[in-house]
Amino acid sequence: MGFKIRKQEALDYHAQGRPGKIEVIPTKPYSSQRDLSLAYSPGVAEPCLRIEKNKEDVYKYTAKGNLVAVISNGTAVLGLGDIGPEASKPVMEGKGLLFKIFADIDVFDIEVDAKDIDLFVNTVKAISPTFGGINLEDIKAPECFEIERRLKEELDIPVMHDDQHGTAIISASALINALELAGKKIGKVKIVINGAGAAAISCAKLYLALGAKLENILMLDSKGVIKKGNPNLDEQKKLFATDKKQNTLAEAMKGSDVFLGLSKGNVVSPEMVKSMAKNPIVFALANPDPEIGYKEAVAARKDIIMATGRSDFPNQVNNVLGFPYIFRGALDVRATSINEEMKLAAVKAIALLAKEAVPEIVNIAYDSRHINFGKEYIIPKPLDPRLITKVAPAVAKAAIESGVAKNIITDWEAYSEELIKRLGHDNKLIRNITQRAKQNPKKVVFAEADNYKILKAAQILHEDGIAIPILLGDKDKIKQLIKEHVLELGDIEIIDPREKQEEERRKFFGDILFNKRKRRGYTLYEARKIMQERNYFGSMMVELGEADVLISG
Amino acid sequence: MGFKIRKQEALDYHAQGRPGKIEVIPTKPYSSQRDLSLAYSPGVAEPCLRIEKNKEDVYKYTAKGNLVAVISNGTAVLGLGDIGPEASKPVMEGKGLLFKIFADIDVFDIEVDAKDIDLFVNTVKAISPTFGGINLEDIKAPECFEIERRLKEELDIPVMHDDQHGTAIISASALINALELAGKKIGKVKIVINGAGAAAISCAKLYLALGAKLENILMLDSKGVIKKGNPNLDEQKKLFATDKKQNTLAEAMKGSDVFLGLSKGNVVSPEMVKSMAKNPIVFALANPDPEIGYKEAVAARKDIIMATGRSDFPNQVNNVLGFPYIFRGALDVRATSINEEMKLAAVKAIALLAKEAVPEIVNIAYDSRHINFGKEYIIPKPLDPRLITKVAPAVAKAAIESGVAKNIITDWEAYSEELIKRLGHDNKLIRNITQRAKQNPKKVVFAEADNYKILKAAQILHEDGIAIPILLGDKDKIKQLIKEHVLELGDIEIIDPREKQEEERRKFFGDILFNKRKRRGYTLYEARKIMQERNYFGSMMVELGEADVLISG
Repeated sequence: MGFKIRKQEALDYHAQGRPGKIEVIPTKPYSSQRDLSLAYSPGVAEPCLRIEKNKEDVYKYTAKGNLVAVISNGTAVLGLGDIGPEASKPVMEGKGLLFKIFADIDVFDIEVDAKDIDLFVNTVKAISPTFGGINLEDIKAPECFEIERRLKEELDIPVMHDDQHGTAIISASALINALELAGKKIGKVKIVINGAGAAAISCAKLYLALGAKLENILMLDSKGVIKKGNPNLDEQKKLFATDKKQNTLAEAMKGSDVFLGLSKGNVVSPEMVKSMAKNPIVFALANPDPEIGYKEAVAARKDIIMATGRSDFPNQVNNVLGFPYIFRGALDVRATSINEEMKLAAVKAIALLAKEAVPEIVNIAYDSRHINFGKEYIIPKPLDPRLITKVAPAVAKAAIESGVAKNIITDWEAYSEELIKRLGHDNKLIRNITQRAKQNPKKVVFAEADNYKILKAAQILHEDGIAIPILLGDKDKIKQLIKEHVLELGDIEIIDPREKQEEERRKFFGDILFNKRKRRGYTLYEARKIMQERNYFGSMMVELGEADVLISG
Repeated sequence: MGFKIRKQEALDYHAQGRPGKIEVIPTKPYSSQRDLSLAYSPGVAEPCLRIEKNKEDVYKYTAKGNLVAVISNGTAVLGLGDIGPEASKPVMEGKGLLFKIFADIDVFDIEVDAKDIDLFVNTVKAISPTFGGINLEDIKAPECFEIERRLKEELDIPVMHDDQHGTAIISASALINALELAGKKIGKVKIVINGAGAAAISCAKLYLALGAKLENILMLDSKGVIKKGNPNLDEQKKLFATDKKQNTLAEAMKGSDVFLGLSKGNVVSPEMVKSMAKNPIVFALANPDPEIGYKEAVAARKDIIMATGRSDFPNQVNNVLGFPYIFRGALDVRATSINEEMKLAAVKAIALLAKEAVPEIVNIAYDSRHINFGKEYIIPKPLDPRLITKVAPAVAKAAIESGVAKNIITDWEAYSEELIKRLGHDNKLIRNITQRAKQNPKKVVFAEADNYKILKAAQILHEDGIAIPILLGDKDKIKQLIKEHVLELGDIEIIDPREKQEEERRKFFGDILFNKRKRRGYTLYEARKIMQERNYFGSMMVELGEADVLISG
């Protein structure tokens, strides 16, 4: 997603200190025997008895109402496929972390050893009294459809399979805005969907709900356009089977208005993009490599509106824009389900937010001065702090209006304040990022660049967009270190102040130093010579505005 | 448990602020986009792939190894019976809190809607990849036996039903020490067990494992002594059926050496205790009211060794002495089960600890100067900080020696240090309690006692054993408030400085004040009169040593 992550670094992140990424902590006082006799026996009997009398009181006396289960059987994890429940745990913990930091929702990640639909459904149903909501995750198609359908039907708490609906909701928001910019109506556009997995099916269904016409959709699986009469299609694919003449992706894309890719990298050529209708909309969402690269696509068509799943290009379609706030809204009105009305409300709220003026904090977080609704900004940024106060209330309102809310919010201003407080409470994320970016030193000179630790620091600052490093030192030695540690510092400036080619600069710097310091006894020769020292050379770079900061020592 | 807990106070504790008692928080950095790309996509793929390749790596890269599920179906909650999974949630959250503060173990409380053995077992098995261990809780007999048996057999992580084994282990530790003090051998003592539920059966079995003789045990259920030939007995009760002539509890107790009560309050009379053999051992563990009160029992027999489940009398048999450390030890060596060897190791470690000299911190925590092995101290105190370093390593060693450990500890000193660090890390409990107790002001005068909040504070300080309050103000008004708010301040001293009966004291205090202050213009009359003011009266009480502290204003 833009950052180049080294394997060892990723492994270290998860293994270091307390293994994994979560901890369960008490929220109530426990520092006296009295506290303990309230928390446990005998005091705890009181809330138990209340809940026994009125089951709804479980929301009052326990963590249930803010607790979501992120549940997977590990059969379709990221792009890794069926890796099993244990191997899915790092992802589920990570999803929990996102729920927490973006919406202050507590998550138990539950990895289930159950590929069988019945066993999976029965297990989740059995443990459902624990939770206020259930986020199904990384379950393979077609089982995921039946699992979600049955759990939604049989449980009275919100259930959502995020792989299906998350992508559908965010891409739909992007689609609405892209169509507006392209001057097209959803009822008239020809849509090509490459991919026929859970997300693709769900996107297609949601686009239909927004007004797209079934006869205008061509869906492709790994064998090409899905055709009517094929006896091997599952129920979901059948819905989108066509009797049109197109068979290949190239044929399908010709003259189409919208391309949605949920397949794999580099399957779309510039020629295919060129063959699309005027003002084409291309959402190439395969990760980490999109169906066609952002730059390639934009190069192929000036009039394109392009989105990917990557954070390093405009218009990132990222589920994190949706699920934290959809569950936040659903939990806060104690919705008995996440229904179509709530999903559509999320779509519209996210789409609308992109059209509002962007607060300075978002510009700063993304190191930009001009984030504005347009072809390069059709959906909000993941770190936009307004998401929680826009999306959660929209979802909550839709739940109330569609009759699935058990807790009716009337004071929306107070609710909004509560949401801001939740963010303030725990969202260090946006604070830290903007703080860092604010300091934003453009160019940083590293005087001791022939040291691995310094090089690693330089690389991280570089990748985080915080700094453009300039490395001082022996070029061969530095390049050797970069190669040895597989660092990503290929195109970064390295300067060896001792080198012949720096003689001109040494002379220049030396003359300036001489003029400044001559009273302290430097000769011109000495001042020029001393510029071979990296600390002097680097500090002169800063003094003369060639860099902003010197890091040394 | 000694404290008188008011219903509303207990309800408030669980409901106030964030409902419930737990929160799930991230342990890893998440304050930059880079952190997030390590925590989630794309970096998270690396640990996933490692675990896919080697399932054991799930302990390295996720929270599994320190994560215990506290699982209940709510069929036998505390003394409340079958109140259902939702109503059991406050207890399960509370159990999680105890795991955390005593042994730094993270707990997901899981409430299961499943009374059926198969559904319960299949559910727990299905979600077991999530956890490093499973603590079954508050599941009714006889289902709990089969549930535990099957889960132990079919899972390769530690499983323990604490209601069975917790009580068994702690009471066995107490029994070993009590027998030593009584000068009796376990193989020869006659044991009466009143109660035939899960805990009673498990205690009986463990006592057998420690050397007790089956023919010396009489077990009673609600119908009396369990007799051979009764066709209505379940498998577990059958094990303890007898053909002896005794039928009633009174008959059974006559001449017996040990009484274990796991039944209900006040079913044992002083006469029954008097009928027991020399140096009788009575463990009356029903809660909150024991089978016979501590004071009654001790009054009936000078030679008795008495234990209860209450914190306000000596020898509290409290499961918290066991389960946090048993799981700690089991998790730390990655034991595949909690076997008999490990339980016996816990029994012995707990029993031994009671015979070691008590550190000052324990004396302070329990406001005592003389905690010493003897009839009033046969098991350690729950707040003893040595428990973790005594019990967890004993359990871990037993796991290694019995061949169920996957992770072999060799440096026991380092392990011990790690355990202390864990306690230091999170155990505010002992720190705070001892800090409070150290300040221990004996008598506190509350000048504004005709105020509900002040009265409540006085009551809490009183119940926590931190202070002996003295209330100043209008007696009727104060008594009215106590009655109105159902406060437990019945036997506390109330003084109205304005009352006729205080005239003598006002005169005495006034004279002293006059002598101290006369230079500032008080007449003797004024000094005496001003003693009607509670603040002056109270401060003179402190000055003259009638109290230690004045709280006012």
